[in-house]
Order: sequence, then structure tokens, then C-alpha cells
Amino acid sequence: MPRVSQERLDARRRQILEAAARCFARNGFHATSMQDVLKEAGLSAGAVYRYFAGKEELIAAVVNEVLEEIRSAFEEAARTSPPPPPDVLIGTVLRRLLGAKSAQGGEWTSLSPRLMIQVWAETLRDPALAAVLRQGFETVRVLWVKIVEGYQDAGMMRADIPALSVARTMVALVQGFAAQYALFGDVPVQAVELGLEALMSMGDRDARSWAGRGTVNLAETPPN
Amino acid sequence: MPRVSQERLDARRRQILEAAARCFARNGFHATSMQDVLKEAGLSAGAVYRYFAGKEELIAAVVNEVLEEIRSAFEEAARTSPPPPPDVLIGTVLRRLLGAKSAQGGEWTSLSPRLMIQVWAETLRDPALAAVLRQGFETVRVLWVKIVEGYQDAGMMRADIPALSVARTMVALVQGFAAQYALFGDVPVQAVELGLEALMSMGDRDARSWAGRGTVNLAETPPN
Repeated sequence: MPRVSQERLDARRRQILEAAARCFARNGFHATSMQDVLKEAGLSAGAVYRYFAGKEELIAAVVNEVLEEIRSAFEEAARTSPPPPPDVLIGTVLRRLLGAKSAQGGEWTSLSPRLMIQVWAETLRDPALAAVLRQGFETVRVLWVKIVEGYQDAGMMRADIPALSVARTMVALVQGFAAQYALFGDVPVQAVELGLEALMSMGDRDARSWAGRGTVNLAETPPN
Repeated sequence: MPRVSQERLDARRRQILEAAARCFARNGFHATSMQDVLKEAGLSAGAVYRYFAGKEELIAAVVNEVLEEIRSAFEEAARTSPPPPPDVLIGTVLRRLLGAKSAQGGEWTSLSPRLMIQVWAETLRDPALAAVLRQGFETVRVLWVKIVEGYQDAGMMRADIPALSVARTMVALVQGFAAQYALFGDVPVQAVELGLEALMSMGDRDARSWAGRGTVNLAETPPN
């Protein structure tokens, strides 16, 4: 087949995936029919079934791509050197996730948080997908634990708390904010950045009520 | 009907709801059939259809109950006076959610986070349920904003950041941790309490690297 280039096959496959992702984001995996996907893609059944044997295969492909997208958002943010403080790091991941384009330049924009929730629901009932999710979380976990250890080694953060707990907490903030975005609509990412900054300011609450009054003896500050 | 007491009707209704909740938590709303629910409840079709006209009605009842459960966990935690610091508040809500019994003393224990994700997925495609979710979030929002304003008024937290952003961030932490619990299994709530405590300790990171060395001039500390 000299004329049907790989590039063209890939583009068609992508067209189908994007259409399916739009349908799934709108209506969930199980309430979406193959007919819906065909209509959304503007393709015939023959054209689609050439690439995906059925809905289950299409679901798996979309779930895998979404999980990959989420994992890479976490990973890339972790690669900044030196690592930014937690509020900036979390904001970076969220901006990437909420404005995510698919790797091939498609337009999943703003579908992602809705799709993310559908993907979570699906992984709860599919052990194979759950394994992919768990694997992605492991990768993120390792990277983010390193960042937290960096904060601790630099004396920026209490070092007596397991870095894993902090990493989990930071990841939870990303997940929870993305969920709110999907459920309650267009919340600016700045809200969570500022919110975390405010929470971070509480550590020195005793000192801060004295701020501007000159010096404070830290030995008298409760260890919190 | 003098002998079929209201109490007995309620108990039967509850038996069906609990069975449905277990099925939905395991397999999602759409992959669960009425047949599955009948089997789980150990009841005949006649017995079930007397209470619920069909699966959609059953889904709506379970979703409403889960949302009510989540809302009341947030509300009750907010009623502690004086409000505990954010890490304690968030831990309280999560312990209630993860060990949640239904109001009538049934045993949804540990189903809740899984059900929560299924409920989120369902609300994304059902405007009526989305309205219930939004309403619950409004109630929680108002209460938690008040708590944050309390922190700010008491000088425990930077007051130049909108309380709503902080409340959103705290709610996101609960949502994100509950999601992790559902997706990755039995994570102790202590992880997020400690993680948040560590993040809160960062506010005074410049001061803290000097801790134990006597006094530090806060005027020289960047405002962060």
C-alpha cells in the first residue's frame, strides 16, 4: 500500500479518537454509543471499525491517552530546575491539564477535567486500566517526592514529615481542583495558587501577627 | 394498610438503596443492571419495583444520598467552635467521609469515595443532579469561607487573599484525597494532615532556616 501513508492512517486514527473523546466527555463512556462516535467523527462504520474493533477498544485507547496526558503534565512540571515552590508547581500542572492539547496538536482543550473524571470512574471497574493509572501515579510519586525532599533539604519546609505525605497532598490538590473545574465550571487556576499561598502563610502565624514590629525570638514560637 | 408500618417500608427501601449502592460502587451506574441490584438485595423484581420505577430512579436516589452525605460531612466539621486549623478540619471531613455510615445506620463504609467518583461522573451528564451538587457546594462554600475569614481576622493567615480561594483550595484537598483513596486504596488520612502541615510550615521558610539561631528580623523576610 504505497499511497496510504502511515501519516494518513495516524491522522484518521486521531480524528476518531478526538471525536470519541468529545462524546465521552459529554456523556460518559457507557451512555455513548458507537453510532454517536461515528456521527461526531463524520465517518462511516467501515472507516472506524478499521481502526477500533469496538467501543471497549476505543474506551481503552482514550483512557490510556488521558492518563498519559495527566502523567506527563505532572512529570514536565517536575523537571523545572530548581523546582518552584508548591503553589507555582501545582499551578503549572493545572494550567497544562486544563488547556491540554493532545500530543498531536488536536483540540481536547478543557475536555480534560471532565474526561479525567470519566476515566477515574472507568478505572474503578477495569483492573487493566487501574494498573495503568497506578503505574502513572508511581512515576509521579517518585518525582514529586524528590522535589519535596529538595524543599526539606534546603530548609524551606519542616523535615520531620514524610516527603511522601507532602507529595500526596500536592497531587491531591491538583486532582481536587481539576475535579472542581469539571464539576463547577471555569474556576481560575489562580484561586488554588493563592489559596495554597494563604495556607502556607499559616505556619508562621505567631510570628506574622508580630510582623512589622521589628524582631521576634523564634525560640519562643511554638514548633507547630 | 394497618400492618405494613411506615418503618417497615422505610427499612425495605433502605435495603434496596444499600444493595444498589454496593453494586454502583463496584461497577458504576451504567454497567449495573436492575438484575444485579435484585440479586444483591436478595429481593424479587416485584418487591423492588414497588419502591423504584426503574434504574434511573434508583440512580437518582443513590446520587442524592451520597451528595447529602458529603455535604453534611463538610457542614458538621465546620460547626466546631472555635474552628480547628485547616489540617485538622480537612482530616475531620475525610475521616467522616471514609468511614461514613448512611444516616440510617446502614453500612456504606468505605464505599463512599468510590461512589463519590461514580456520582461525579454521573452529574457531568445529568443537569438535574448537577444542580443538586452545585447547591451542596454553595452551602459548603459559605460555611468554609466564614472559617477562613476567622483565620484571617485572628491574624493566623494572610488576609490579602480572597477567603473564597482558600476555601476552594481546602475543599479541593478533601476531594483530591478522597479520589486518591478511591483510586489507589487505603491511604491513611494522616498523610494529608501531615502533608498540609508541612506545606503550612513553608510560609516562614526564610525564618525557619534560622530557627534555633536566636532572633531574626522579620522586616528582612520577603513578603512571600
